[in-house]
Amino acid sequence: MGGSRAVVLASGGMDSCVTVAIARQTHDVALLHCSYGQRTASRELRSFHSIADHYGIGTRLSVSMEHLGKIGGSSLTDPSIPVRGADLSAKGIPSSYVPFRNANMLAVAVSWAEVIGAHAVFVGAVEEDSSGYPDCRREFYDAFEAVVRAGTKPGSDIAILTPVIRMKKSDIIGVGLRLAAPLHLTWSCYQREDVACGVCDSCALRLRGFSRAGVEDPIPYDVRPVYT
Amino acid sequence: MGGSRAVVLASGGMDSCVTVAIARQTHDVALLHCSYGQRTASRELRSFHSIADHYGIGTRLSVSMEHLGKIGGSSLTDPSIPVRGADLSAKGIPSSYVPFRNANMLAVAVSWAEVIGAHAVFVGAVEEDSSGYPDCRREFYDAFEAVVRAGTKPGSDIAILTPVIRMKKSDIIGVGLRLAAPLHLTWSCYQREDVACGVCDSCALRLRGFSRAGVEDPIPYDVRPVYT
Repeated sequence: MGGSRAVVLASGGMDSCVTVAIARQTHDVALLHCSYGQRTASRELRSFHSIADHYGIGTRLSVSMEHLGKIGGSSLTDPSIPVRGADLSAKGIPSSYVPFRNANMLAVAVSWAEVIGAHAVFVGAVEEDSSGYPDCRREFYDAFEAVVRAGTKPGSDIAILTPVIRMKKSDIIGVGLRLAAPLHLTWSCYQREDVACGVCDSCALRLRGFSRAGVEDPIPYDVRPVYT
Repeated sequence: MGGSRAVVLASGGMDSCVTVAIARQTHDVALLHCSYGQRTASRELRSFHSIADHYGIGTRLSVSMEHLGKIGGSSLTDPSIPVRGADLSAKGIPSSYVPFRNANMLAVAVSWAEVIGAHAVFVGAVEEDSSGYPDCRREFYDAFEAVVRAGTKPGSDIAILTPVIRMKKSDIIGVGLRLAAPLHLTWSCYQREDVACGVCDSCALRLRGFSRAGVEDPIPYDVRPVYT
């Protein structure tokens, strides 16, 4: 929606959908989706395109980083590692952590930004209310910005923006509702593609967020436990 | 060859071949090749496997980052941009620069290193004698190391090592000869796969390096100009 160009990394999930809504207020948005061998890749991609269609965003790029699946090490990409049931009080790095995934995605985003002349990359990472991934902290994005300054052409000037990183899930939902973001088109579940399972970490965080925001999650669930 | 594990990024070219020879002295080497839609991808990959075979390195990963080809912006990946003839006195960033390419490759290397428990990633980047790419300077690798510290699991401790970065091409050839690196198996040409063209930037740098080292380049060339 006018303004200078920005690449927004959009998974098809809720946090990145709200990030798109925020980015559109100031930037002309180009949308990037990265699949990396995750179990629900095709469902996510459908949400990605639905969100792009909703906003009339024509500049889209969908890339496949299947090597992350080959490399493995995560329950999201390795069928031999089970996706564990949600335990929102657990500490430490969960089995769904994909090693250094966000650096891989940011690298693609910056390459694209440099070519299309975008001066910002938006990422819907969430630090506190998320799952303890090391590459979801602002410290990581600050470090990455330094790499971008050192490793792109002089004058590229690409900032890495993380507008929801300090928000709680319920705040993100609140902002999404205020901006009329199409939350009904998003997909968050780590293990199913027909209806959301309701029990993986990602479903649990999402359902808890809606519960705390005092609104009903508009997507269909297999089971819908109450997380408080 | 014993020691702790390291991932070495190997293009199939001379600098990375010598980097493999150096890394083997202290580390148990795992070899990573990234193709990114460059013109000579299949020839490079052949060299990669020949070098791995030569050293008996079984742990290999070859990944395709075709999105860099889709993204374009470089004469290496975009057939509509010609590979310019060599001009070793030219300043600035050449048309063969692939935007932020090395960050994409490093991200894959670090993901793999984290999964296989390697504490080092070796890269055969060359700062001075190379072609002015912003992502070939040590400053860039220092910044990337900070990203690795911020974005991997605690205890991963992955260093980014660039043992030839301050060397001139002729020094690299000297080190390669001293370590009996299989330079005859390497490939550097940006535009041909049957014999090296002899006239692209990469061939010119390589031929000038051999000339200055006072040895004959063992690979076949279409034409073999004298660069001094």
